[in-house]
Formats: sequence, structure tokens, C-alpha cells
Amino acid sequence: MSVLVVGTTALDSIKTPKRENPRLLGGSASHAAIASSFFSPTKLMGVVGGDFPAKYIALYKKHDVCTGGLEHVKAGKTFHWSGEYEVNMNNRRTIETVLGVIEHWQPSVPVEYETTPYVLLANIAPQIQNHVLDQMARPKFVVADTMDLWLNIALEEVLRLLKRIDCLVLNDSEARQLTEEDNTVAALPKIHKMGPRYVIIKKGEHGSILSSPKGLFVAPAYPLRKVVDPTGAGDSFVGGMMGFLASQRTGSVDRNLRRAIIHGAVVASFCCEGFGVAVTTKTTRAQIAARVRELEKVAGF
Amino acid sequence: MSVLVVGTTALDSIKTPKRENPRLLGGSASHAAIASSFFSPTKLMGVVGGDFPAKYIALYKKHDVCTGGLEHVKAGKTFHWSGEYEVNMNNRRTIETVLGVIEHWQPSVPVEYETTPYVLLANIAPQIQNHVLDQMARPKFVVADTMDLWLNIALEEVLRLLKRIDCLVLNDSEARQLTEEDNTVAALPKIHKMGPRYVIIKKGEHGSILSSPKGLFVAPAYPLRKVVDPTGAGDSFVGGMMGFLASQRTGSVDRNLRRAIIHGAVVASFCCEGFGVAVTTKTTRAQIAARVRELEKVAGF
Repeated sequence: MSVLVVGTTALDSIKTPKRENPRLLGGSASHAAIASSFFSPTKLMGVVGGDFPAKYIALYKKHDVCTGGLEHVKAGKTFHWSGEYEVNMNNRRTIETVLGVIEHWQPSVPVEYETTPYVLLANIAPQIQNHVLDQMARPKFVVADTMDLWLNIALEEVLRLLKRIDCLVLNDSEARQLTEEDNTVAALPKIHKMGPRYVIIKKGEHGSILSSPKGLFVAPAYPLRKVVDPTGAGDSFVGGMMGFLASQRTGSVDRNLRRAIIHGAVVASFCCEGFGVAVTTKTTRAQIAARVRELEKVAGF
Repeated sequence: MSVLVVGTTALDSIKTPKRENPRLLGGSASHAAIASSFFSPTKLMGVVGGDFPAKYIALYKKHDVCTGGLEHVKAGKTFHWSGEYEVNMNNRRTIETVLGVIEHWQPSVPVEYETTPYVLLANIAPQIQNHVLDQMARPKFVVADTMDLWLNIALEEVLRLLKRIDCLVLNDSEARQLTEEDNTVAALPKIHKMGPRYVIIKKGEHGSILSSPKGLFVAPAYPLRKVVDPTGAGDSFVGGMMGFLASQRTGSVDRNLRRAIIHGAVVASFCCEGFGVAVTTKTTRAQIAARVRELEKVAGF
């Protein structure tokens, strides 16, 4: 079945001690949609300015991502994030964020998108996530990603969103922030009480934890020897997960979600191996399948 | 088969915002030997002073830990560590460390211990770990634990030790320190080159990674809702692992080590649920087996 991905479509400029990587394709929806496209037909909703390179539209198309919901504001500028890595590549700091056309975006869901069964509200303002959900006709499964920024400045909107979605994805520090609970595992039931039946906590290189009515799933990350740029890894994770989930015709949600998380983790591992989507976009289904088999081997006992 | 555990036997005083826990049984060898005793006959080597309470000897005996190698220096004081937790229980700071009788300890391996097939050199000065190994008659499998302190002040002795052991256990920051490598996975081959055929990196609540000639094993931790006191968790992990490994009569080392790590992780989870060995010592084999089954369930995909 098909997946609708809504989120940011951006340009990322990433400086490292060795080189500049100006205006790469970035944004939560770009990473998530490309990741999802490995497994299921994927539709993209986002907004870009007149400065958005045609080659990036071509890149979405290469992955068969439907761009019918990608708005072009010719007179505006694309959301642009620039950041810099320190020498050891461990710390990344933001140099500048220019919201551009995303600041006043009021997305209008195309009629042909309204009945998409799987909806991924990738990281973007929760007002926008809610507004998109208002326009959808009874989706089968809705996943939302979020970030600390929204917990700080738009908590009420996040809480309103939580009552309307099937699954929330967030990282461990965000889970602690949302629940005021130090222990990640103890934070989970508190998040369920806020609405979502499924909660996934991302822990980067340490994997993730799924909490569902059937209990916990402690998922490994793919063990990478070299991380070039983790930007977009979380988005690739949730996109790959959603794409895989939508591709499953049989099996329980719980079992399928476990397999989906493993596939998301593998797509995220490819994302980390290059700047922007450089490596993700060169990845094949066969390479993904090989790493999933490898992960089965390294995690079994 | 039997396990010899060498390490510190100590008194730990642990203050929390709510209460004092003075002079609990602590030390790497105490935690590790009790953990090992759930699975295999376990012998303890350590040194205590005249102030060491008889009730703690009784506690070792309750677990059938052989104390024939526990030296008593009547005129001396037992190694005593005191520390304090901050309000959120996340940060622990050392108030005082009194080395006492451990400072000049030159352990002499009892004749009846010399042929013990499984040797666990729990965390203690590497000089002592080497000195014990000098006295052993061709052990079948030797595991050593270490800590950042020894990498800082006795690196040469650690490097000498690494050439003589089968398996090194250390935490992720120590692995990075030892190899000057930022990436934990990339640190592993560098540690193998220093000697040990097996390397286990402990990551606390994030589980552990085993690296062996057969490849990696990414192991989960048991997901705990409440951590009371993680002191001794790493020692319990390695002790439980070694005890389980020594109990296996068939199977490959690689497969047995995986199962052993899971059992170690489960014993460590019980350790975290109380101060000192308070919960560990009340744990039964049936409770351990139940958590192992639970871990199989939460980690499968």
C-alpha cells in the first residue's frame, strides 16, 4: 500500500574540517520519502522556493516518489539549514537556519492523496502535522516524528497530535523531556497515556525501543564502522520503517513493526555513510536485504 | 566447570537523597563471584581487613562461593569506597576511596585453585591480574575486566595483560580511550590486535557488543523500569557471563558466549534493582531464567 510523507524539504549546508557540502538535498520529508520508496509507493508533501534545484526533483523522481504534493513558491526561498562539524565529527553545531517558505506553509492535501492508507508525519511543526491529518480520510496507520524544539515551543499542539496518531517516534532525551521521567523504559507507559498505541524511542547507534500493546521490542542498530554524517538518519529510519510496514500484506502489526524497525535501521545506516542522501540514493534493495540478514545474524542468541 | 574470580572485596558506602547505605558488601570480585555462583562452582580471591563483617563471609557462603582464597589481614582495613548520588540518581560522585589492605596485596593462588579452568580477572590493578595469571596452570578461558583508571596509570601492565587473556571486557569510553578511536565498532579490531580473541564492550542500559572471530554480537540489556543503584552491575554482568560459560558442556564458544552475555545482562539487571548485592543475593535461578526468556521475546524479530 502507499505511504504519504509530510515534512520539511530543505537545503542543508554541512561544513566539515575537510570540505564544504553546500546546499545538499535535506529535510525530514526528503530523507523519509526516499527511505520509504525502497519498499512502497511513496507520495511527498512539502514546500520549496524558487531556488530549489531541478536536480533534486529529479532525485525524488529517480526513487519514484510522487511529487504531486510538493508546493513550489517561486518568489520564496527553500528552508535552509547550515551547520558545521567539529574535528572529531562528533559534535555538530547549527550556523544558521533560514525558514523561508516553510514559515507560513499551510499545506493543502491533494484530493488524490486524501485516502492514502499510511501517513508519515515526519518532523515538522505539529500545527502542520495536525492540519494535514485534518484533511485525511481515515488513514489505516499514522506515524508522527517530532523533536525537542516542538516540545519547547508548541507542546499543546504536540499533545493534541498525540491523541490522533497510532505511533509516535522520538528520541530518548525527548521522551524524558515529554514525560519528566529519567528512565526511558518508565517513560513509555506515560507516553501511551497521551494517546499513541505504539511508541518508538530512537537511540541512534544504540538502536531503538518499540513499546506496543504486545510489550517491548529492543531493536539493535546496524553496527557501523564509520559514520560520515548522521543528518537525516532518524528521518531515514522512520521512512524506511513506514515504507516496509506499508508493504506487508499479512502478519500482525506487532510482528510487522519489528521487521519494519529493522529495515528502517538498515536504511538509516546507509544514510549515515554519506553526506545528505548521497549514499542512501545509491543503495539498492539487495544491499538493504543483505544488511537485514547481517543484523539477524549479529543480534541472534 | 569451576570459575576462579579475582578482584576487589570491598565495603561500599552509598548515600542517596533519601538514605545512607553504610558499609555494604561491594567490590568487583564480590559482585562477580556471587553472579557467577548462580551457574558454576565459584572460588573467590581477594583481601579484606579486620573490619570485614562476618555476615559478608556468610553471604559468600550462602552462595557456595569458596572463600579459601580470601586473605584476612587482621591489622588492616578493608578497601572502602564511599559515594553519593545526586537527586535524580543519575550522577554518582566519589566522596572518598580508602585502599586499605588492597594497596600492598600480593595475592598468592592457593594450590587447589591453580588448575581452575575458567579465570575471571575482575576489575583490579593489572599488576595483580598479571601476578595471578603467572600462578595459574594453563586455564581454559581467561577473561579480564578493567577500568579507565588503569588505562591512565598502568597502561603498560594492561597491554602486557592483553597478550595473555582470551577475552577483554571494558566499557565503550574505555574502548575509545584504549584505541584513540571515536567509533566503538572501529575500536574492536584494534583491541584484537593487542591480544584478546574476544572483546566485549559494555554499554550499560544500551546492552553490549561482543566481537569474536565469528563476527559481532549486538546484545540487548534487560529493559529496567527503575534503576536503584548501578554499582556493581558491570561486575555482575561479567561474573554471570563467566559462570554461565563455565557451565556449558557442549556448543561452540561463540554460541555459548552469546548466551552467556544474555545471562550476565540479566544478573546485572537484578543488581541494579537494589543497593550493593541486596537484590542479587535474593535472586533465584528461576527468576534469572524467566528474565532470559523475556529478553528472548523482546529482542526477537
